[in-house]
Amino acid sequence: MPFESSLLLPLKRCNRPIDQIMKTFMSLLTDFGLSDPFVAEMKAVIYSICPDAEVIDITHEVERFDIRMGAFLLASAAPFFPAGSVHVAVVDPGVGSERRPIAVETNQALFVGPDNGLLVPAAMREGILHVYALTNRSFRRDTVSSTFHGRDIFAPVGAHLACGTQPKELGGEITDYVRLSFGEPKFDKRGMTCEVIYADHFGNIVTNVPQQNMDRLNSNTKFVITTRGKRVRARLVKAYLDIDKKGLGIIAGSHGFLEIASRENSASRMLKAKVGDTIRVAVSAP
Amino acid sequence: MPFESSLLLPLKRCNRPIDQIMKTFMSLLTDFGLSDPFVAEMKAVIYSICPDAEVIDITHEVERFDIRMGAFLLASAAPFFPAGSVHVAVVDPGVGSERRPIAVETNQALFVGPDNGLLVPAAMREGILHVYALTNRSFRRDTVSSTFHGRDIFAPVGAHLACGTQPKELGGEITDYVRLSFGEPKFDKRGMTCEVIYADHFGNIVTNVPQQNMDRLNSNTKFVITTRGKRVRARLVKAYLDIDKKGLGIIAGSHGFLEIASRENSASRMLKAKVGDTIRVAVSAP
Amino acid sequence: MPFESSLLLPLKRCNRPIDQIMKTFMSLLTDFGLSDPFVAEMKAVIYSICPDAEVIDITHEVERFDIRMGAFLLASAAPFFPAGSVHVAVVDPGVGSERRPIAVETNQALFVGPDNGLLVPAAMREGILHVYALTNRSFRRDTVSSTFHGRDIFAPVGAHLACGTQPKELGGEITDYVRLSFGEPKFDKRGMTCEVIYADHFGNIVTNVPQQNMDRLNSNTKFVITTRGKRVRARLVKAYLDIDKKGLGIIAGSHGFLEIASRENSASRMLKAKVGDTIRVAVSAP
Repeated sequence: MPFESSLLLPLKRCNRPIDQIMKTFMSLLTDFGLSDPFVAEMKAVIYSICPDAEVIDITHEVERFDIRMGAFLLASAAPFFPAGSVHVAVVDPGVGSERRPIAVETNQALFVGPDNGLLVPAAMREGILHVYALTNRSFRRDTVSSTFHGRDIFAPVGAHLACGTQPKELGGEITDYVRLSFGEPKFDKRGMTCEVIYADHFGNIVTNVPQQNMDRLNSNTKFVITTRGKRVRARLVKAYLDIDKKGLGIIAGSHGFLEIASRENSASRMLKAKVGDTIRVAVSAP
Repeated sequence: MPFESSLLLPLKRCNRPIDQIMKTFMSLLTDFGLSDPFVAEMKAVIYSICPDAEVIDITHEVERFDIRMGAFLLASAAPFFPAGSVHVAVVDPGVGSERRPIAVETNQALFVGPDNGLLVPAAMREGILHVYALTNRSFRRDTVSSTFHGRDIFAPVGAHLACGTQPKELGGEITDYVRLSFGEPKFDKRGMTCEVIYADHFGNIVTNVPQQNMDRLNSNTKFVITTRGKRVRARLVKAYLDIDKKGLGIIAGSHGFLEIASRENSASRMLKAKVGDTIRVAVSAP
Repeated sequence: MPFESSLLLPLKRCNRPIDQIMKTFMSLLTDFGLSDPFVAEMKAVIYSICPDAEVIDITHEVERFDIRMGAFLLASAAPFFPAGSVHVAVVDPGVGSERRPIAVETNQALFVGPDNGLLVPAAMREGILHVYALTNRSFRRDTVSSTFHGRDIFAPVGAHLACGTQPKELGGEITDYVRLSFGEPKFDKRGMTCEVIYADHFGNIVTNVPQQNMDRLNSNTKFVITTRGKRVRARLVKAYLDIDKKGLGIIAGSHGFLEIASRENSASRMLKAKVGDTIRVAVSAP
């Protein structure tokens, strides 16, 4: 479990009687961008089937065809949604090929998208119960294009789930779905070797180190971070404002992983680090 | 009718009684971008008048003042919205001048925006019943700026329509509204000559060739696509993955037109094709 | 009061009985961008607490850490929201430090965000009644990260307010909150000296001159605008189409301030003017 479980604790709800609330919450995540009409078409299809849905965009700025980035963003945001939400995610370089459309049922939510690993880290975090191949064509649009399954398969299936269709009606259960993980960091006496899984808008570098591992690094030690030939000194910190002006901070991020951050600059620009890069964090030589 | 009629087939709806659903769906399309407060102000005005509306963004990334691009995007997305939706669209280089604000009533929906052609392809697709000039000032904001009719005229008129105002209350019917079309491709023995009407986020080039015309091209033939001095070979394909790695594919797109696509590159970058460019598709010489 | 009061006049509402409308409107404004999952997590937290909220994005494209830009955009959009709305705004370079989280109660709305001036111009416009420090931890998430108070403090507090929590339950009242203003323009016999407070997507330059001051400039006079060594002639105009092709127009903008605009170009690019720059508008020498 790479994500911190405490993030999943329930919040207090307001006092309205639950039977007055008819919304089912849905999320959308794609690599479609916001300049084309694609996202709006998915929403229009959803609301045509299930007018009571409330659709929330996670993001549509996933790098084109970058399944790992989409998987990280979905796994980051999904746990904060109300229980029973339906998540539709489409980063789908295989659209129109033999890759299967699937739905994943977890303890908390339902996920709909292509069988390419995109849904797996988010669903694993909540505990996968069943995975179904979407073979029942009655939940698709009548005409399915070969280029836009987001609108023609995934959005209508998600909307039917939001309006009460049972997941097992969608098609046969499968177990050979495509897996995806963010890998495991390696610890040793002098520090650790890990991987960049994301860099955010502020230049914070998200590593694949679950933040529970933070106490495996000595909080009083000076570290050196090395990647792509760059070497920058770093310290463990609790808040951005504790970071030295010219150094980097190693901080428990807001998504359950250790992050590497700069005070007011972009850490990802300072290190020229890209998604997939290996990062070495080691005790600074005396 | 440039759009494929099968796209308009209804979807199955969920089983909730219709009288429990009080939403009216609205869409917004503008060239305002998302960094300014303009779009939020339009939504705030709409919800102040009609709290039961549900507003869906089509896009706000239309190129500044590009009426044809806006018209294409609106015509692409509008047919997927629930029947009875109200579409407010603003790409309006003539704001503050004598150009009229109008509303268009079709068999499926209502469209509100400037009389510059923006609404016409979308409305024609659904069958235009009546066009009204918005002369009744009681549906505008009390103070109308000369620079932001989206907020002060179009949004409030759209919201009143969503809340039950009859279109004929808005003003007098007109017939001399500004027309706009995407032109007609020309077919000959060796192929066809057409026009670029859009290039999407993935670099797919949308032509003005209705996809029903696909069978006028021989599916077993090798073609050459020529534009701006560039020549690239192409074949008719059914899915992106069928496209040759270095060639282009001619494919039935998801909006009713033939599109020119690359496998994982950007076709628009390969051809350096821009909106309005002429494209020649001809049988490859043996 | 830098904003035009006439903007605040109420709109006509539709005729549905108010007790059938259970929505509370909320707005979000941040410098988070739309590519990360941050905004979705805030919305997911809000809807988990208050499913009846309706969240409207003002913008998430505030320049990173630019409190003044965020303050201007919030003050521009907030007055158009329905009475009783809850605005959550986060531009927060001090996250994780001692800066206080606050809520501001006005005659029209509630504002939630960091105590760094961000909320002040918007709240002042509507009349500040009370400011509270958010010391009551029961309205926060159970685990508060040191890097993302938007999700862990501001969003849940806003959602509780939207669902009926009284502002005074949030914590103790304070009066020493951080102030922020856009400064005052200076008028003299030959014209005025003012400051750039924003430049929009179309290149229109928003000055800190309330538009009620427009009649202090002679509408028949030719002016010269000077900034950063650039000199461009200008005239007072009522609409963009009245602007000379090579000159600039001084126009009553849509947010209560005088703006400097070009006809179809970008005034901000013509003048190379940036936020915070001083602009001199003076009678052209004969």
